[in-house]
Amino acid sequence: MAGNSFGQFFRITTFGESHGPAIGVVVDGCPAGLDFDLAFIQQQMDRRRPGQSALTTDRNEADRVEVLSGVFDGKTTGTPIAMLLRNADQRSKDYDALKEVYRPSHADYTYEARYGLRDHRGGGRSSARETAARVASGALAQLLLRTVGVQVQAYVSAVGPVELQKSAAELDLSLVDSHAVRCPDPETAAAMEALITQLKAEGDSVGGVISCVASGVPAGWGEPVFDKLEADLAKAMLSINAVKGFEVGSGFAASKGRGSAFNDAFVLEEGKVRTRTNHSGGIQGGISNGEDITFRVGFKPVATIAQKQQTLTRSGEATELQAQGRHDPCVVPRAVPIVEAMAALVLADHMLRERVARV
Amino acid sequence: MAGNSFGQFFRITTFGESHGPAIGVVVDGCPAGLDFDLAFIQQQMDRRRPGQSALTTDRNEADRVEVLSGVFDGKTTGTPIAMLLRNADQRSKDYDALKEVYRPSHADYTYEARYGLRDHRGGGRSSARETAARVASGALAQLLLRTVGVQVQAYVSAVGPVELQKSAAELDLSLVDSHAVRCPDPETAAAMEALITQLKAEGDSVGGVISCVASGVPAGWGEPVFDKLEADLAKAMLSINAVKGFEVGSGFAASKGRGSAFNDAFVLEEGKVRTRTNHSGGIQGGISNGEDITFRVGFKPVATIAQKQQTLTRSGEATELQAQGRHDPCVVPRAVPIVEAMAALVLADHMLRERVARV
Amino acid sequence: MAGNSFGQFFRITTFGESHGPAIGVVVDGCPAGLDFDLAFIQQQMDRRRPGQSALTTDRNEADRVEVLSGVFDGKTTGTPIAMLLRNADQRSKDYDALKEVYRPSHADYTYEARYGLRDHRGGGRSSARETAARVASGALAQLLLRTVGVQVQAYVSAVGPVELQKSAAELDLSLVDSHAVRCPDPETAAAMEALITQLKAEGDSVGGVISCVASGVPAGWGEPVFDKLEADLAKAMLSINAVKGFEVGSGFAASKGRGSAFNDAFVLEEGKVRTRTNHSGGIQGGISNGEDITFRVGFKPVATIAQKQQTLTRSGEATELQAQGRHDPCVVPRAVPIVEAMAALVLADHMLRERVARV
Amino acid sequence: MAGNSFGQFFRITTFGESHGPAIGVVVDGCPAGLDFDLAFIQQQMDRRRPGQSALTTDRNEADRVEVLSGVFDGKTTGTPIAMLLRNADQRSKDYDALKEVYRPSHADYTYEARYGLRDHRGGGRSSARETAARVASGALAQLLLRTVGVQVQAYVSAVGPVELQKSAAELDLSLVDSHAVRCPDPETAAAMEALITQLKAEGDSVGGVISCVASGVPAGWGEPVFDKLEADLAKAMLSINAVKGFEVGSGFAASKGRGSAFNDAFVLEEGKVRTRTNHSGGIQGGISNGEDITFRVGFKPVATIAQKQQTLTRSGEATELQAQGRHDPCVVPRAVPIVEAMAALVLADHMLRERVARV
Repeated sequence: MAGNSFGQFFRITTFGESHGPAIGVVVDGCPAGLDFDLAFIQQQMDRRRPGQSALTTDRNEADRVEVLSGVFDGKTTGTPIAMLLRNADQRSKDYDALKEVYRPSHADYTYEARYGLRDHRGGGRSSARETAARVASGALAQLLLRTVGVQVQAYVSAVGPVELQKSAAELDLSLVDSHAVRCPDPETAAAMEALITQLKAEGDSVGGVISCVASGVPAGWGEPVFDKLEADLAKAMLSINAVKGFEVGSGFAASKGRGSAFNDAFVLEEGKVRTRTNHSGGIQGGISNGEDITFRVGFKPVATIAQKQQTLTRSGEATELQAQGRHDPCVVPRAVPIVEAMAALVLADHMLRERVARV
Repeated sequence: MAGNSFGQFFRITTFGESHGPAIGVVVDGCPAGLDFDLAFIQQQMDRRRPGQSALTTDRNEADRVEVLSGVFDGKTTGTPIAMLLRNADQRSKDYDALKEVYRPSHADYTYEARYGLRDHRGGGRSSARETAARVASGALAQLLLRTVGVQVQAYVSAVGPVELQKSAAELDLSLVDSHAVRCPDPETAAAMEALITQLKAEGDSVGGVISCVASGVPAGWGEPVFDKLEADLAKAMLSINAVKGFEVGSGFAASKGRGSAFNDAFVLEEGKVRTRTNHSGGIQGGISNGEDITFRVGFKPVATIAQKQQTLTRSGEATELQAQGRHDPCVVPRAVPIVEAMAALVLADHMLRERVARV
Repeated sequence: MAGNSFGQFFRITTFGESHGPAIGVVVDGCPAGLDFDLAFIQQQMDRRRPGQSALTTDRNEADRVEVLSGVFDGKTTGTPIAMLLRNADQRSKDYDALKEVYRPSHADYTYEARYGLRDHRGGGRSSARETAARVASGALAQLLLRTVGVQVQAYVSAVGPVELQKSAAELDLSLVDSHAVRCPDPETAAAMEALITQLKAEGDSVGGVISCVASGVPAGWGEPVFDKLEADLAKAMLSINAVKGFEVGSGFAASKGRGSAFNDAFVLEEGKVRTRTNHSGGIQGGISNGEDITFRVGFKPVATIAQKQQTLTRSGEATELQAQGRHDPCVVPRAVPIVEAMAALVLADHMLRERVARV
Repeated sequence: MAGNSFGQFFRITTFGESHGPAIGVVVDGCPAGLDFDLAFIQQQMDRRRPGQSALTTDRNEADRVEVLSGVFDGKTTGTPIAMLLRNADQRSKDYDALKEVYRPSHADYTYEARYGLRDHRGGGRSSARETAARVASGALAQLLLRTVGVQVQAYVSAVGPVELQKSAAELDLSLVDSHAVRCPDPETAAAMEALITQLKAEGDSVGGVISCVASGVPAGWGEPVFDKLEADLAKAMLSINAVKGFEVGSGFAASKGRGSAFNDAFVLEEGKVRTRTNHSGGIQGGISNGEDITFRVGFKPVATIAQKQQTLTRSGEATELQAQGRHDPCVVPRAVPIVEAMAALVLADHMLRERVARV
């Protein structure tokens, strides 16, 4: 139990380092009888994989999902589902130069502090490559959620200072993938792309924000105290590399406002209890209320930049570092399926937890 | 396992409703041999309890901690420590009017959706009264952390639009409790108080932000993947009633910036590896790096307001609601010890987890 | 997480020492809407409590269950149910003599080895008094099980060499409580009582065996690998003080036999899949098959005896010990409700787990 | 969380079906810096694998361990260690005849009852092949235990009615592997082999008992209440296929005896607290006392026999079954490394848990 598992009922355990033989995930608790749509899982993998556009790193990982267990005759069997992703394009040599250096704002120093040693090849376990295993299992969670009509959709709502000014309701989320930057508003997407391209040229990187909407979640999912739905979502998001902030519903904006402005009045619509506004982001008292669940995730700029930076060697000597590896100048376009995956894992977990709430 | 426990190694389980006989907490995993400083625990309780100033509700709970187990001859014994808080001032009658009504932005509707019934007296389990149990156990966690020199200190950094413009380093955190609003900057505190007083008079409420600093945490605490230190902190904070946002280190501000501006350069200071800046908020790759751990927590305005609001009855009829109960117009002054408690619980957990990281 | 919780979905956490203010239990995960039959819970407590017959210790504990939370209008609410048992009859003085001595086959030495200190009053947490909290929560589990027709019944099948020669099917289990020794066969019960009375007079103690039958469990409860139903039952039973052995179905007898003799042939009875014999004890591959679940639990003789015994002081000096406290010469009559409680906790847990096994 | 993980601090998750592409295990919580002795792990695998002697099934699995993660430069890194075992010799066709039949005393019927479907090829997940993953990870646990001088050794002490009449102290445990039956007493081993050979010829199977000794465990390992060392061992053992009984120390024999005979007197030997006898099996109050930990595990006869048996088809029709597959007539010789593995997993877990018991 060293933090490589996530979820209580729908539980994943991931393993693998960036430059080892493979990474993978074991899903324990996926109910039996689910149609196992490998094509959908692979499609989510493809949205995450590097090398998919000019905006991303050119590391080339096919990321073909190999299913090792838990599926028979096209259906899940109730036993653990193990999925393996071989590491294809390992240029470990690229990292030899980093063996003795602590990269700024990476995990090199902290891993050594914790473990007394580290696998320096590509960041080892701290590499964002680990998130591929999340996407594979998150896609499975999405398949489970679809059986009850729940959809999870994320999109890029800010790249650096370029912010999307429309709410989810004003957007056509089917357009998310129509632009490499994964912002569903064409004009904003173009501005975001221009900024990323410029920063890449400058050897710099930039942060961004991903917004996410889960629709179709019925009222009653979530636990009331520590495992509040928003608490589990917050943990899920902050567990993604480079994430520094999370807000649900009206988020930090609500901190500046008044109760009379931010309360969501209950109204009856077509015989259903609804709220007129959705400042709550679909969650009240930790439990879903049937409205769209909405949240935002803030990513810092990628730490690896091509500019010279000051740092230390393992022996404490000052040195300069200039990254040569293959890295994205902005992580948010590829992080969209990761956010969806983590959100889906949380929701699938709570979908199952709801089943034991009443006699 | 319905979400009433928190932590893995230092694990608490809370119980109790707002208007039942008592609330309480069981701490499992507190190491043996810790000096049990009940006075300190009581002091933290007193900082949270209602009725402590004109800014807070006048519900009167003495909140005397009764220790039922796990302590002998002034020391923890390694067995579970149960602490009980009797509910003294229960005016359940106040809530009879609410039995058939869903209060806006409360958990009334969602609890019913989940459980098919609810304890309507004072919100039952969804009441912020539950946090008293967190403060008691969090104070115990603080005692454990002090044995290794870790201090956790929170303060109010915003009330509605009134924001503190200084960083933690520019503040004297020993002044936090010198003002009822728990902002360590006297001028800002006065402005905050004025705003709260005004809103109370208007029958309205207001949100706010609490900032928190954990100092003295050595490098090496935290797990690298799902149980990243910031992920556990995010969950801890979002599990507090009314919290809508969390950010660590430079947070959402980093989403707008560049890597060249937000990377933390490593430098050697007095033979110790340090970072020149602390945009990372003391955590890199999920693991502490020895710098101060800093984060901010956004609270929405209290949902209970004295103004008339539209809502529904349980049978779906439109009705109006005007709260009569005793509630704070702004939750953040009393939430300061709650934020500290939850942060301490996370840190105490990871303090113990670090002990099994290496052979 | 120091081992004071049991169960995954229906999860209890117990606390309290023999001679502290109280012991108690928090049940997390009991579904909402269950009729809370406090009288039944109290009745199970009464079956466990000391002083109920001449065969048991004359320590006098009324063991009135105080319900602190989780119940409203006679029904469980889905929130944690905390039950408290005050320690009434604490003659801590009785134990002062034991402060410096390691009692043979007790936990005195091992607690000190683990924790560096111990609460010596009545064994502290290692006292069988802790099992009262199990009985209270186990009775709640029994209430849950009854909603689906599952009954758990245990009885004494051996006291020392006096063994019951009949199988459960040959017995009238409604007679269990008709004799103080809790063996449903009157003749055997009389022989058992005679033996216990004799050993009490001799200042000695004796072991015994409890058999247990869970009827009405449908096919499909249990997990296939580590959390096999028999594995969870084994752990539950071995976690009871003084238990040294567990066997399910034909148990150790099967180790001596052949497959052709011990396989359970499937047959159709009234349209239902049944097995002709039940060597499997109602569990195959870790999962219930619809037959009665049967197991046996072996208890060692009570370690506290009135005869002189050699032992050591804490400082390593040889000494003699002669117990003065109030103790049962044979634990099995009072352990019957404990075995039932632990079995019910396992079954209630798996009853809920079954709900998430299929899409 | 469907029961495919074991352990709290040193935690394994296994996956894979008998006739799928592979089985495997992920170890989470193995401390960093442990020398990873793959040769030892492979050696334990070889002791378990089929086809190693005339007494075992002739299914041929090389069972080469492929390490996918968590090891770098010959040492564990603190990240999850994934080990993969490809299924080489899959004659799935052999099982087509079993698709519609419930094999007596197998898990066919119960899996269907639970999951609504099953992977019938070779028993799928219920196959003892799953234990290979336990042996791989258990060997790793043994490597960890060796760093503090703990050794775990199991041996066959009974095959059907042929019982070893010597205690562990009277045996030379280095001889365990010198005979295919894994009984360290040559004469008894020969008698056991003769019996197994005879039963194989008769198309029958036979049960047996494995005894196990863990030496070098210091006083202080184990939790006092639910996670007692013997409780965790009991669960570990009962989770192994075909196990029906467990006893620790004097076990069921103690149920027949008196306290005056079964108490272990404390004595000082070479300045160390010891017990003169070891009826407790090295555990008192759930915590190790420094003596050898001893327990016995009872296995039923293998359910698959070559004799004709009555059973039912999935549609409820009576049919006869005569196994054609490759199966051991007696499972205990090959189960010796499995018992060792599970014992080592429990002990490694508690070795780490002990580290957080005191301030």
